[in-house]
Amino acid sequence: MTRKLNFASGPATLPEPVLRRAQAALWDLDGSGIGILEHSHRGSAFRAVLDRTTARIREVAGIGDDFAVLFLTAGATHHFTMVPHNFLGEAETADFCHTGLWTTKAMEEARRYGKIHVASTTAPTFDATPEVQAYSASPRYVYYTSNETAYGTQWSAPPADPPAPLVCDASSDIFSRPLPLVHHGLIFAGAQKNLGPSGTSLVIARKDFLATHRPGLPPLADYATYLDHGSMYNTPNTFGIYMIGEVVAWIADQGGLAVLGERNARKAKVLYDFLDHSKQWRAHARPGSRSTMNVTFRGASPALEAALLARAEERGLSGLAGHRLVGGLRASIYNAFPEEGVHRLVQLLDEIEREHT
Amino acid sequence: MTRKLNFASGPATLPEPVLRRAQAALWDLDGSGIGILEHSHRGSAFRAVLDRTTARIREVAGIGDDFAVLFLTAGATHHFTMVPHNFLGEAETADFCHTGLWTTKAMEEARRYGKIHVASTTAPTFDATPEVQAYSASPRYVYYTSNETAYGTQWSAPPADPPAPLVCDASSDIFSRPLPLVHHGLIFAGAQKNLGPSGTSLVIARKDFLATHRPGLPPLADYATYLDHGSMYNTPNTFGIYMIGEVVAWIADQGGLAVLGERNARKAKVLYDFLDHSKQWRAHARPGSRSTMNVTFRGASPALEAALLARAEERGLSGLAGHRLVGGLRASIYNAFPEEGVHRLVQLLDEIEREHT
Repeated sequence: MTRKLNFASGPATLPEPVLRRAQAALWDLDGSGIGILEHSHRGSAFRAVLDRTTARIREVAGIGDDFAVLFLTAGATHHFTMVPHNFLGEAETADFCHTGLWTTKAMEEARRYGKIHVASTTAPTFDATPEVQAYSASPRYVYYTSNETAYGTQWSAPPADPPAPLVCDASSDIFSRPLPLVHHGLIFAGAQKNLGPSGTSLVIARKDFLATHRPGLPPLADYATYLDHGSMYNTPNTFGIYMIGEVVAWIADQGGLAVLGERNARKAKVLYDFLDHSKQWRAHARPGSRSTMNVTFRGASPALEAALLARAEERGLSGLAGHRLVGGLRASIYNAFPEEGVHRLVQLLDEIEREHT
Repeated sequence: MTRKLNFASGPATLPEPVLRRAQAALWDLDGSGIGILEHSHRGSAFRAVLDRTTARIREVAGIGDDFAVLFLTAGATHHFTMVPHNFLGEAETADFCHTGLWTTKAMEEARRYGKIHVASTTAPTFDATPEVQAYSASPRYVYYTSNETAYGTQWSAPPADPPAPLVCDASSDIFSRPLPLVHHGLIFAGAQKNLGPSGTSLVIARKDFLATHRPGLPPLADYATYLDHGSMYNTPNTFGIYMIGEVVAWIADQGGLAVLGERNARKAKVLYDFLDHSKQWRAHARPGSRSTMNVTFRGASPALEAALLARAEERGLSGLAGHRLVGGLRASIYNAFPEEGVHRLVQLLDEIEREHT
């Protein structure tokens, strides 16, 4: 069976060598005679998985002891609530750099606990990341979404000169390039794009920022619980942690984050270059703000877009429809998406353009 | 590679035919050309997985339209908080049937939101499920743990004549026998014992009970969100749901819950009969309250227990140590644990008993 080229935005394509290893581990993890799904989380075999996954993450991303590496049974959406629940008092203000759908959802949840201030926005087009930030007088934290999965924009560098710790939703570009830690209090990422399966998330957070959490929270709503119990207050998502460990080992095998960053930029450039020279297709995001992970684009007509989706499906190119709330087209080309797949998409776009010219 | 006999209490042994199917699905789900971990949760292939999993659960457990079947990215511990957060007002009282470690944790969380009343307890020995309930005047709900994983007790039938809807933590015995729905408002179960991998949970709840939830909760803390959005408000644990669907299909292939209930009773009886006739080993739980899922027992001396654990490890019998907070020994023999494995444990217990007599 030939596998399709999977352009889905998440859950998304994973490295094939990792899938092969996972198949074996379902039956027997590391020669233990028990599969990864069946190992007690308190046993030595899973302990080794948790420890090596954490060590690999620290190694590949250059994370020192001042930061905690935590695993939560939670998607990114849980963190939209958890972050203000942990850090935003009623009289306090969180600043937001507003770049689209996902920041909007995070802002809605923050309003539940305190005040919000929009430090910058690119609404309603959301075709760029904002350049100038008008921070509030004394924000509790400054929140941004490093890569906007639905609109296809990505910060080339984190918001400048933040007056408070940055909180970053890095779900869709974590480990796609070197990870900036400076100025960051907390980075969270749902796993299902660049890290592994859905249903688990990775948190990288400064320990001194975590220490400022509000007291009296329920244990699993409190980031400090995961720090204090090494992500094992309750049974964690053992398979998710295993998969993240294998994906990060694959990243290291590829040469690490700098190498992947260059590869991802090159992959995306092939597509953006084509779109910029096309008369029938155009990229949504503006140069300087373009995502290397999610390339959003439109056709000159709905008929053209429909033609692409139909032809793509025939050719084994899957998942090119845009986000259901945004429309248009989107090619998600995460770390594990093969470079050759981008060329195949460009060929197809070109073929359809010629037919409609 | 021979797989071990895995007596772990959860994550726990899974049916081998399900593991074989999952191995194939990691590479290619149902001939779709994309693996189960990589499929968009909004695509038709995963939609089919979610729908068939739900249908199989309804079929195997006889669940009608008055009950919702929900999947949460959450372990059972999350529900200890979610249940009172959703249903217990400050002036209201929740009644608890207190059978051990897990009820204690649930009680601690309920105190955060309202009042609790201990309707019955078997503390401090926790060697039985209580018979007589002294319910409070007007409880909001009556909470019990159908099977106490750490102490090895199990309710033979739900608490009698409850004056309010029952809420049941069924994590460790769900689908091990026919599921009682009468009088129940909500049943939750972490998946990692009889259902699938850790990191996801199944909720079976009366829709009219869910409708009584407190207003204004964060979306993912609110059971109604999962009902309103068909468990898809955010990206669910797609692999967890797939695995639950495969395990439930396996249950149906075995003949369903009544057949499994008889098989589980027979498996457990082999072990309890041996323990009751032994001079060196004794069961912890009293007849009438004994779990068919977790058989807890002690040796006449610490040396005997240590001898068992060491010999078991040599023979490929894994996971027989008791819960870390309770001690002693425990054989977890869930649905997927083979009957022959129980006989091998009895042989080993007998062998060590003879050596020490």
